[in-house]
Amino acid sequence: MKQIIDGEALSLKIQEEIKKDIKSCMIRPSVAVIQVGDNPASNSYIKRKEVACNNVGVYFRLYKFDEGTPELTIINKIKELNNDEYVNGILVQLPLPEQYNEKRIVNSIINSKDVDGLTDINVGRMINGKKTLIPCTPQGIMRMLEEYEVDLTGKHVVIVGRGKLVGRPLITLVLSKDATVTVCHSKTNNLAEMTRQADVLICACGVPKLITADMVKEDVVVIDAGTNRVDGKLCGDVDFAEVSKKASLITPVPKGVGPMTVAMLLQNIITCYNNKNTTK
Amino acid sequence: MKQIIDGEALSLKIQEEIKKDIKSCMIRPSVAVIQVGDNPASNSYIKRKEVACNNVGVYFRLYKFDEGTPELTIINKIKELNNDEYVNGILVQLPLPEQYNEKRIVNSIINSKDVDGLTDINVGRMINGKKTLIPCTPQGIMRMLEEYEVDLTGKHVVIVGRGKLVGRPLITLVLSKDATVTVCHSKTNNLAEMTRQADVLICACGVPKLITADMVKEDVVVIDAGTNRVDGKLCGDVDFAEVSKKASLITPVPKGVGPMTVAMLLQNIITCYNNKNTTK
Repeated sequence: MKQIIDGEALSLKIQEEIKKDIKSCMIRPSVAVIQVGDNPASNSYIKRKEVACNNVGVYFRLYKFDEGTPELTIINKIKELNNDEYVNGILVQLPLPEQYNEKRIVNSIINSKDVDGLTDINVGRMINGKKTLIPCTPQGIMRMLEEYEVDLTGKHVVIVGRGKLVGRPLITLVLSKDATVTVCHSKTNNLAEMTRQADVLICACGVPKLITADMVKEDVVVIDAGTNRVDGKLCGDVDFAEVSKKASLITPVPKGVGPMTVAMLLQNIITCYNNKNTTK
Repeated sequence: MKQIIDGEALSLKIQEEIKKDIKSCMIRPSVAVIQVGDNPASNSYIKRKEVACNNVGVYFRLYKFDEGTPELTIINKIKELNNDEYVNGILVQLPLPEQYNEKRIVNSIINSKDVDGLTDINVGRMINGKKTLIPCTPQGIMRMLEEYEVDLTGKHVVIVGRGKLVGRPLITLVLSKDATVTVCHSKTNNLAEMTRQADVLICACGVPKLITADMVKEDVVVIDAGTNRVDGKLCGDVDFAEVSKKASLITPVPKGVGPMTVAMLLQNIITCYNNKNTTK
């Protein structure tokens, strides 16, 4: 039985739950997004976040800086937002233009408002197995696997891509579910030999249609976190048309992982909001 | 050509270098070790650290608390040491007796003196690819591989064990050397199938002689971080007698990884000392 994972429907279901939660909030939860420059892909991602925030009732603010704005100006804005009691979550839309020190800027976000889960201390807390804010895309992937009842215990999960936003946090998350995990990347010698072993294959490497049907085994579960633009059209890291014939469960691109990332962002905003309002 | 990695000789070589460095220090570098209870294995590990410190000229202080000492007493001692300008490094000998919150105690060490590299922020910094204090055993393993000129690029490194002290930090370290990495553990279904793929096999699971000759391929490089006591004798996670016949390079137990851990501890103490004395 081949089945396509409907990330959009699941995202909307989660959004409905969040919408209900927010109805009981006296003050609206809010998020501040920092954008530097005018990257078209970033514009589109930010737009999607705004739409989702509006849908559930999260107050959305965008702080857009021209490319060339001094780093200190951006960091000072983040510090101001850190201290603003009406801002629950802060995120910096990545990637930043090359001349900026991404690590320094991201780490100026106070840990309690770091809705992308990317500051050093939040990453360390996750690795050390503590309750913390988990990066949205890997969190969304884990949630999808859970909703579709994919038990990872003892399964071989192969991750293609070792980036900080998706691949690396996933290692910890799938290990915590007792999966055996293999991480492949651009320097892997024998990629097909690795991917063919996967019970669950998760791709986040940004190479359009890298994974072809001969590279997976029958009945594999495939999660495609790639979002590549080829000839103006979105496609993933997986050749969906062919691989979907062999997979038991697979995410499409678009409408797979993408909408889940947005849902998990909303969830992290609510977590920040609740942490603030229960610790007070 | 079969070759045994001489961890002890390499450790002594590193200690000689450190000894020379310390000769030029006006104030002696120093480390404080916190021990709770009287675990015989801990006593023996601490003794080895003390001997190495004495050998190179690091001032060694042991703070030994009875099991049952209130957690706050221990944390207050750590805070006192955090503020003591003559203490460069602090470590808590693990494991602590069960009733203690290990994470809370370890995280009370100030990051700049965390010579075991285990606080949340130091772990996060390592994962985020920043210069930081790296846990001693994985650091020692990487150093051995380097000294024996094992190039990891594109190689398949299989790690058996997912503990916070060895297995997990190793994932990041071997990925940064462009290896493909697989992590196996007690829930892995088909361990032998995984280990047989290893170009480099690193064991840190604490199961005596788990890895037998039929579980490795010819010419594998084997690093055994296990230290198990069987009938009063030390042995590793690898059946050394048999596996060494197939391996191209292998560490013995004892005198393999163990002495390297101690050497890296000394190195971390010196790093803390230098950081303090150059940032002042």
